[in-house]
Amino acid sequence: MTVNIQIQLARRPGPMPVVEDFAVVESPIPTIGDNEILIRHEYMSLDPYMVGRMRDVKSYAASVQLGDVMGAHTVGEVVASNDPAFKPGDKVSNYGGWQLYTKSKAAGLRKVDARLPLSLNLGILGMPGATAYIGLFDICQPKEGETVVVTAAAGAVGSLVGQMAKLKGCRVVGIAGGADKCRMVIEEFGFDACIDYKAGNLFKQLVEATPKGVDCVFENVGGEIFDTILRRLNPFSRIAICGLISQYAAAEPYGIKNFQSILVNRVKVQGFIVGEHLPRWPDAYKDMSHWYSEGKLKVRETIEHGIRNAPTVFLGLLKGANTGKLILKLED
Amino acid sequence: MTVNIQIQLARRPGPMPVVEDFAVVESPIPTIGDNEILIRHEYMSLDPYMVGRMRDVKSYAASVQLGDVMGAHTVGEVVASNDPAFKPGDKVSNYGGWQLYTKSKAAGLRKVDARLPLSLNLGILGMPGATAYIGLFDICQPKEGETVVVTAAAGAVGSLVGQMAKLKGCRVVGIAGGADKCRMVIEEFGFDACIDYKAGNLFKQLVEATPKGVDCVFENVGGEIFDTILRRLNPFSRIAICGLISQYAAAEPYGIKNFQSILVNRVKVQGFIVGEHLPRWPDAYKDMSHWYSEGKLKVRETIEHGIRNAPTVFLGLLKGANTGKLILKLED
Repeated sequence: MTVNIQIQLARRPGPMPVVEDFAVVESPIPTIGDNEILIRHEYMSLDPYMVGRMRDVKSYAASVQLGDVMGAHTVGEVVASNDPAFKPGDKVSNYGGWQLYTKSKAAGLRKVDARLPLSLNLGILGMPGATAYIGLFDICQPKEGETVVVTAAAGAVGSLVGQMAKLKGCRVVGIAGGADKCRMVIEEFGFDACIDYKAGNLFKQLVEATPKGVDCVFENVGGEIFDTILRRLNPFSRIAICGLISQYAAAEPYGIKNFQSILVNRVKVQGFIVGEHLPRWPDAYKDMSHWYSEGKLKVRETIEHGIRNAPTVFLGLLKGANTGKLILKLED
Repeated sequence: MTVNIQIQLARRPGPMPVVEDFAVVESPIPTIGDNEILIRHEYMSLDPYMVGRMRDVKSYAASVQLGDVMGAHTVGEVVASNDPAFKPGDKVSNYGGWQLYTKSKAAGLRKVDARLPLSLNLGILGMPGATAYIGLFDICQPKEGETVVVTAAAGAVGSLVGQMAKLKGCRVVGIAGGADKCRMVIEEFGFDACIDYKAGNLFKQLVEATPKGVDCVFENVGGEIFDTILRRLNPFSRIAICGLISQYAAAEPYGIKNFQSILVNRVKVQGFIVGEHLPRWPDAYKDMSHWYSEGKLKVRETIEHGIRNAPTVFLGLLKGANTGKLILKLED
C-alpha cells in the first residue's frame, strides 16, 4: 500500500446517517518531522458515539468538520520513527481516525502488549473496557447480591459490564434485541437472564427477571427501554448513563414518563464520558488484562474487513447488526 | 378546648385531592402513661409531600391508612408529662399530625428555642430548612460564581435555597408562577432574576436569565419546567430532585424529552428525602439560626387558621395559592 486511504465526512447526516455522508479519499502517506512517528493502522474501532461527532451540535466533543477524516481509536505498527522511544515494529494504539496511516508525537501513542491479540486494545484493553469498568465500579458501585441491569448487553461495553458484575457476585440481567443475542448474553457471557426487547411485554419480562427489583443500571440505550427500567428501581439505586443509542438517530426524542422514580427511590443518575476519567484507565487495563488472562472475561469481536467498507459497517452497527466489539481490519 | 380534633383520611384521592377525601373527627384528649408526654399543638405544617401519603402506592414513606390521622410536622407546648425531662410549658416540635393533641415519648420530641418564633420550627428550623440546606450544599454543591436555578422559588424550600445560594456567591435564578411571586422572589428574597412560567416563552426567558448557562438545579416542580431547564445545563452540572409537584396530581405523567442532556453534559442527578439525612439536620439548624439571627435569611410565612380548615388550606397549597412556608395555627 503506497497511499493513504481516508474516510472523510462529506456532509452532515440526517436523522440516520447514510453512506453518502462519507467520502473515500486517497492521499499521500504522511511524512514525519522531528520527534514524529508514522503508524500504519491494522485495526480500527467503530462505535456508536461517532454519530454525535458527525453532527454540528454542541456536545461534549468537537464535531468532525466537513472534509475532515472521521475520528476513531486505532491500533497498529510503527513503520518509521524520529523519536528514539519508538522503533519500527512497535505495536501502538492511538486515536488515528478512519484511515490507514497517521503520524503522531509520542504523547498521542500508547505502546501495547504485543503478546496479546492486537485488537483487544480496541476492546477490553481500550476505550470500551475502560467505559465498562469505570461506569460499573465508579458510578454504579454494585454490591454483592444486588441486581444489575445492562442494556445493549450483547455489545462491546455491555457484555463486559455484565461479566464484571458477575465477578462481583451480582445478579445480572441483560437487555438485548433478538433471541440470538439473548442466547449469547446468557450462554457466552454468563448473564443470569436476558430480556429480548423485540419480543414485547418488556415490563413483564423485566419483573420476572428481577424478582428483587433493580439496584444498578448500566444504560446504553435510553428511550422506552430505559423508561421501563425506571419502573423497577429499588430505593437508593444507581444509574450510569453511558449511552442513549436509541435516541441518536431518533426523529423526535422519546419522552421519559417515569422520571418520578428518581425522586421516589432516591436514585443517583450520572452521565459520564470515559475520556474524562483518564486517571482510572490504568486500573482498568490492569484488572481487565488479569481477568482476561485468567479466562474470566469472554471477549467477542465482530471483525469486518477493508477501510473502504467502514461507512457500511458503521451503519450496520447503528442498526444493531453486530454482537460484541465491532472492529475493522483495515487491509483485507 | 376539651376534645381532640383530628383530620383523618376518609378515602383515597383521585388525581387531585378534594375536601371530601378528609373527615373532621372529634375524639377524647389522649391520656398519658409511663414516660409519656402530652402535647397541645400550636402550629402545624402543610407540605406538598402529603399528597403522596394519601395514595396507596409504593413510595418512600408508608401511606396513611383510611381512617388514620393525616401526618404532619407540628410544634406546640407540653401540657402534661410523665417524663422528668419534659415539663408543662416546654416548647417542643414533633411529627404530631393533623390534630390538636398528641402524646409521645421523649424520642419523638425535640425541645425548641422558645426565644425564636415558634413557627420557625416548621420552616427554616424544621424540615423545609433542612431540605433546602442538604439539597443545596450536599447535592448541588454550588461553587462561587456558578448559576443556580430554583423552581417553586417563592415556596418555603425554594426561597431558602435561593437565599443560601446567594450567601455562597452564586447567580441565583428562580422560577415561579405569576408576576407577584416573581416580584417577591427578587425583591424580598434577593434572587438575581425570576422567571414567571405562566408568562410563556419559558426557554427564551431562561436563556436571558442564565447568560452563562446553568450549573445547579434545585428541582421542586418537574414536568415541562424541568424539561426546559435540561436544555440549558452546563457540563458537569448537578441536579437535586427534591420534589415534582407538577406531577403529583397529573392525570398522565409528563414525558421528559431532553434527558439526553444528562449524558451530553455529564450531569449528576440525585433524588433525596430529607428524613434520610438526619445526621446533617443539626448542622442545618445551627447555620440557619445563625443566618436568621444576623438578618441574612428572610422568612415568609403564610399563616392560616383553624384545624378544621386544614383540608381546604392544603388543597390551595397544591394549586400554588401560597407563598413562603404554609403554616396552620390550630386554634383561631
